[in-house]
Amino acid sequence: MRWSSYYQTASRIFHEYPSWSKAVVVCTVISGGLVAYGDATPVQSEFGNQIPKKKVVVLGTGWSGTSFLKNLKDPSYEVHVVSPRNYFAFTPLLPSVTCGTVEARSVVEPIRSITRKRGANVQFSEAECYKIDPKNNKVYCRAVQGKKLGSAEEFSIDYDYLVIAMGARSNTFNTPGVQEHAHFLKEVEDALRIRRTVIDLFERASLPSLSVDEKKKLLSFVVVGGGPTGVEFAAELHDFVHEDLAKLYPSIEKYVKITLLEAGDHILNMFDKRITDFAESKFFRDGIDVKLGSMVVKVSENEISSKERTTGQVVSLPHGMVVWSTGIGTRPEILDFMKQIGQINRRALVTDEWLRLEGFENIYALGDCATVNQRKVMEDIAAIFSKADKDNNGRLDLKEFREVVGDIIERYPQVEIYLKKNQMKDVADLLQKSEESSLTADIEYFKDALSKVDSQMKNLPATAQVAAQQGAYLADCFNRMELCEKYPEGPIRFRGVGRHRFRPFRFGEVSACIFFSLPI
Amino acid sequence: MRWSSYYQTASRIFHEYPSWSKAVVVCTVISGGLVAYGDATPVQSEFGNQIPKKKVVVLGTGWSGTSFLKNLKDPSYEVHVVSPRNYFAFTPLLPSVTCGTVEARSVVEPIRSITRKRGANVQFSEAECYKIDPKNNKVYCRAVQGKKLGSAEEFSIDYDYLVIAMGARSNTFNTPGVQEHAHFLKEVEDALRIRRTVIDLFERASLPSLSVDEKKKLLSFVVVGGGPTGVEFAAELHDFVHEDLAKLYPSIEKYVKITLLEAGDHILNMFDKRITDFAESKFFRDGIDVKLGSMVVKVSENEISSKERTTGQVVSLPHGMVVWSTGIGTRPEILDFMKQIGQINRRALVTDEWLRLEGFENIYALGDCATVNQRKVMEDIAAIFSKADKDNNGRLDLKEFREVVGDIIERYPQVEIYLKKNQMKDVADLLQKSEESSLTADIEYFKDALSKVDSQMKNLPATAQVAAQQGAYLADCFNRMELCEKYPEGPIRFRGVGRHRFRPFRFGEVSACIFFSLPI
Repeated sequence: MRWSSYYQTASRIFHEYPSWSKAVVVCTVISGGLVAYGDATPVQSEFGNQIPKKKVVVLGTGWSGTSFLKNLKDPSYEVHVVSPRNYFAFTPLLPSVTCGTVEARSVVEPIRSITRKRGANVQFSEAECYKIDPKNNKVYCRAVQGKKLGSAEEFSIDYDYLVIAMGARSNTFNTPGVQEHAHFLKEVEDALRIRRTVIDLFERASLPSLSVDEKKKLLSFVVVGGGPTGVEFAAELHDFVHEDLAKLYPSIEKYVKITLLEAGDHILNMFDKRITDFAESKFFRDGIDVKLGSMVVKVSENEISSKERTTGQVVSLPHGMVVWSTGIGTRPEILDFMKQIGQINRRALVTDEWLRLEGFENIYALGDCATVNQRKVMEDIAAIFSKADKDNNGRLDLKEFREVVGDIIERYPQVEIYLKKNQMKDVADLLQKSEESSLTADIEYFKDALSKVDSQMKNLPATAQVAAQQGAYLADCFNRMELCEKYPEGPIRFRGVGRHRFRPFRFGEVSACIFFSLPI
Repeated sequence: MRWSSYYQTASRIFHEYPSWSKAVVVCTVISGGLVAYGDATPVQSEFGNQIPKKKVVVLGTGWSGTSFLKNLKDPSYEVHVVSPRNYFAFTPLLPSVTCGTVEARSVVEPIRSITRKRGANVQFSEAECYKIDPKNNKVYCRAVQGKKLGSAEEFSIDYDYLVIAMGARSNTFNTPGVQEHAHFLKEVEDALRIRRTVIDLFERASLPSLSVDEKKKLLSFVVVGGGPTGVEFAAELHDFVHEDLAKLYPSIEKYVKITLLEAGDHILNMFDKRITDFAESKFFRDGIDVKLGSMVVKVSENEISSKERTTGQVVSLPHGMVVWSTGIGTRPEILDFMKQIGQINRRALVTDEWLRLEGFENIYALGDCATVNQRKVMEDIAAIFSKADKDNNGRLDLKEFREVVGDIIERYPQVEIYLKKNQMKDVADLLQKSEESSLTADIEYFKDALSKVDSQMKNLPATAQVAAQQGAYLADCFNRMELCEKYPEGPIRFRGVGRHRFRPFRFGEVSACIFFSLPI
């Protein structure tokens, strides 16, 4: 379709400016298309005028930002990526980096080797965004660490579209001493620091001047948080100690103790109970001490204190190293921005189902820094009913319902989940009684039939998969922006006119790896 | 020999304690020899007494220390290695590590994977020695960096033999600002830091807020010192910039400038003139600016100042990074020890030709922290003459001279160099006239004939090759200590009685790699 519209445009131009024909044909042969991929010049409009490229600023190079960047194919955008990290990190492998199972270089991919393939269309700046000005479509950035540059450290960038993909930070729950004395496991540097610390502790515990008690204190490793990261790190550390380090430090292996503190009732409690049981019994066999119902209240240089739920007492444990992995919190820059736009008391930036920041037309937020505010059916029930009731007789028959149900399911994914959960094969099952008696439903009956679907709404997990799929989804929207403007493909606007441009974002549980050519 | 003496000993014990025979035989079968290799128990003496193992303390894990460790085969020593670095680094590859040509992990070898093969015989402590007490045969050490251990950080070790192989540090010649603002290239960490800095500078020079002038300043790389390290680094950096980074940062490649400052007349002036010429013209073609006769007088955060010999003026150059590579200086711990033992105004610990610290029977110094004090022929000329003059007639005939000349050459290697240099095939050429006329030589004639040989003496270069060969040499002496005590193999003691136990150390210019199984 692109091609045919190109030829239409071209023939129109040839007709109006016959002398151009040769030049344009040559251009076409060389560049192989209307707009060459690496071309930074403005886009040719349908009327031959040059319209400036739309500027897209992407903040962040994590899962969602990088996925967006990799999937954005339309050359009519000028992209500027800003991130304090000039690489993408395959974070699920970080626990393996801490113990040398995987090399750090194997889990990173330089952003510039991605942007490079896109030519002058994509620009990267190693900096952090410290302020967003949505009124003037501007972001303010500054260079991070390294050589001081004075005033040249700060700069601003204008945007037409802004994609916020800045991720999250480790959550300390304001526990005293965590920031100062615990290790996180969020960045590649964290993993490398943990690795150095483990070796350093083994070296120190080997010094001839240390008592057995001192050796034991140094080799007491405490992991806080029984989620996937904490559990995987504890397991990796156990293998590292008993398979690798035991050979190099045979005399002190016996002093090593790994403790996992979990405030809840079980480790890995977001997974199936069988997984939890397996992990807990494996850790028991391996000698990893899992303490459940243990809420850390303080971390000092050499000691970690936790309150035991069963006894209510605070107990202390000496430690050589604490790894803190209790989930994510909001980054300070995001908190500032949330205050600025009035999104208060939320844990992340709130977007609609199209990942657009609530209240803004041209700002998107993806990944861990954002949360999708799924719309409730009950909020729109009257509008849905009135849209469906084509003959405006105040009653909905099965035919009318069937016509609109596809749009309902697309707009409100909780409906589909509800159907699946209640083993309803046909959407008509929702209005079951009506079918049987071939009766029609009035608004009250309709409300009642759909009253329970909103209970199926749940937030998306803060995982790499979700972030990567969001990035790919948004890039796909950007790629087809012009097309979908003309031929909207989304569901009916129940509260408005026409259709939504795009289908809303839906998370499908497939491996995120398909979006990436893993450098391993 | 060992085996036969073991059986003699064993049969004597059986004779005295018949009831032991069974037990001892079983032990023999299990351990497979008199002293199992990994056995830390005391050595069995010829008379069945257990004599404690000799304690050898090795300070340092560089080329000489590691070479000593790898070549020490005699299990009758208990070895304790102390070094702030728990790995050996293949230093000649460091310039390649700075630019990622070689990975850091490929140029290091963990010391514990070497000591591990030696079992309990060899112990390692990650610490630095801060004091040597040669009177009480004790070294004082403390743990380096990392977690604070309080009083447990310090410990002392007794030794029977001490091997000092602590290397040297980069020499700043007390130039102001070098320590604070320049990078060295001596340790693996230095190389990694340089690599990070180069990337960081490229990222910063890519920021949109910078002027061309600021970009140029950031991308001005200055290398100080035209020795092998500086030259290799400059060349590696050039290739890194123009082959790799140019692809990722195409817009700023043109602002890169590499300058090499050398105080002398030429770079690589320790090598053949053809090498110097080639390097200088290659650098010229590559656009690396070589400034000869340029003595750096100050380094600040953004500027480096040097005095030009031709004009006498001080000129300044902006820089993003300075790499300082002007040779080695004495480490502060070595300086302290030199003061303590009265070796003042020397650049390194002075040893005899057997690498034994001057004035000490049981302390050895190897590698860059030591210098061999080659004995002059002229100092011993009277003793040599009197030893050679077997018939004590005050004259030396050719036969007498021939008998002793092998020992002279071995004891005073400068004699051989002199012979070679003057194309004398036969040692008798030294006493040429005597041969012709079959005359004999008196002491004055002898003195005169050998008067020029001492001019051939020169210090060994401070290279990895020398250090590695010294380590291997000393280990060989230690391996054969007992044997050579009984059957000395060294040259005649001209000033004493009998022979030296060992041949003196001689540096042969072979690749040092043969001593190491390179991990690359």
